[in-house]
Amino acid sequence: MSQSTMIESRLHIIVRSTDIDFNRHVNNAKYLEYMEWGREDFYQLAGAYYDTLLDLGVITVAANVNLNYRKEAVQDDELIVITRPARIGTSSFTVGQTIIRARDDELIADAFVTLVAMDVNTRRSTPVPDLLRHAFLT
Amino acid sequence: MSQSTMIESRLHIIVRSTDIDFNRHVNNAKYLEYMEWGREDFYQLAGAYYDTLLDLGVITVAANVNLNYRKEAVQDDELIVITRPARIGTSSFTVGQTIIRARDDELIADAFVTLVAMDVNTRRSTPVPDLLRHAFLT
Amino acid sequence: MSQSTMIESRLHIIVRSTDIDFNRHVNNAKYLEYMEWGREDFYQLAGAYYDTLLDLGVITVAANVNLNYRKEAVQDDELIVITRPARIGTSSFTVGQTIIRARDDELIADAFVTLVAMDVNTRRSTPVPDLLRHAFLT
Amino acid sequence: MSQSTMIESRLHIIVRSTDIDFNRHVNNAKYLEYMEWGREDFYQLAGAYYDTLLDLGVITVAANVNLNYRKEAVQDDELIVITRPARIGTSSFTVGQTIIRARDDELIADAFVTLVAMDVNTRRSTPVPDLLRHAFLT
Repeated sequence: MSQSTMIESRLHIIVRSTDIDFNRHVNNAKYLEYMEWGREDFYQLAGAYYDTLLDLGVITVAANVNLNYRKEAVQDDELIVITRPARIGTSSFTVGQTIIRARDDELIADAFVTLVAMDVNTRRSTPVPDLLRHAFLT
Repeated sequence: MSQSTMIESRLHIIVRSTDIDFNRHVNNAKYLEYMEWGREDFYQLAGAYYDTLLDLGVITVAANVNLNYRKEAVQDDELIVITRPARIGTSSFTVGQTIIRARDDELIADAFVTLVAMDVNTRRSTPVPDLLRHAFLT
Repeated sequence: MSQSTMIESRLHIIVRSTDIDFNRHVNNAKYLEYMEWGREDFYQLAGAYYDTLLDLGVITVAANVNLNYRKEAVQDDELIVITRPARIGTSSFTVGQTIIRARDDELIADAFVTLVAMDVNTRRSTPVPDLLRHAFLT
Repeated sequence: MSQSTMIESRLHIIVRSTDIDFNRHVNNAKYLEYMEWGREDFYQLAGAYYDTLLDLGVITVAANVNLNYRKEAVQDDELIVITRPARIGTSSFTVGQTIIRARDDELIADAFVTLVAMDVNTRRSTPVPDLLRHAFLT
């Protein structure tokens, strides 16, 4: 019997000048963009492309973010956004996301983000497509 | 003897085209910007201006965001960002923030955001200045 | 015979904390967002709503921006984005846009922005719909 | 006698989901962020770091952008932002910037951006520091 392997995305990014606020560190809101980029990469590793889900009439939308800011990040830092499956329900799922600094593995931020599968027409929740569900069951 | 009144900020904003993502609703990260704008207004109501705190050697930085997305908001929606004191500690404090749609009071999002007072030079936590602390004790 | 009146949009906005960069003024890229908000308002005054144009199979996309930065704008400044028709061609048109500071009419930025009508399916240029064209002919 | 070599920055970036607007291409304002990232890289190649200039009491601010949008860019595109010196004056200078798509060298956008050296305290124009000037004279 084969062992299954958890899908894990590790997306490398560079902190850019326009990510920085007047405190000269990455603005708190920007981390949610970084996290979204990580989830996009995770979806693609799972084969659950935006257009593939859209063909099924489904989009995924954020329902809850619980995000801890651990250390400041500054311009030109190389960061790694790590995204892993955490929980799967009927119409919602949760990913665990961690941002570390590449040069020393320092923890910058961590979060659980819960998303809901939404019918693109009715805008109501709908079962998570198997395409995406399988990423949580390996 | 007079009763004290809690400081509450109610900031009216309009959803702009560049807040919208390809799902044609406000992007999840943008809500954290809206919340920051609400906190800036709250600080100013409390007399705790950015420069006044900076003169004391203090900035405030996000430590945790726990944010629920309740309803989609779309372009041209008028939203109200409501910010209230929730908890005060030695070097950290928490605000409760709610975003409602102006035309029907529909709840769009709610969050608790915990911030830490940081010494602008050492970048370490420091006691919350009285200037800001008083907003949590009225 | 009635005199026609030029459509002119005057959109009032407030500079927010996340518009500010580490130079503590509005970031150069943010002005293009302000300008887009002004054009959206101009389109709506002309009755050329995004969805109305989309029903005709047309979107409008930027082809050229020529923007002068005249004065710095800072957090909490109230600005007025003024948008006026400048030129209409077969498949492109130009608007003149000016940003002034509300409290003293100081000129902050001015630009000419040329846009092209694009067929949403072929992604090629297409004649400007009459709906939008009429805003340039009054 | 050695021949001097022009400093040219070539910055590789990936188009992210939050760069995309409801037309499903990179938003027009985002290009100015890409251009700023390219200029930061150019400055660093020249040894003109933000903090080094700030120690001289100087920041550089945009005075004019003249930007042509040539082709749409979409999510996950790898782009190259090329920045070259174009003109140097007493207190201002101009860079030529080009954005091409990495996989086929397709031209996406090109611009001339004129910047002014500004005294960080008086907020008035000041001579371009030699540190930066030399990048335009090689």
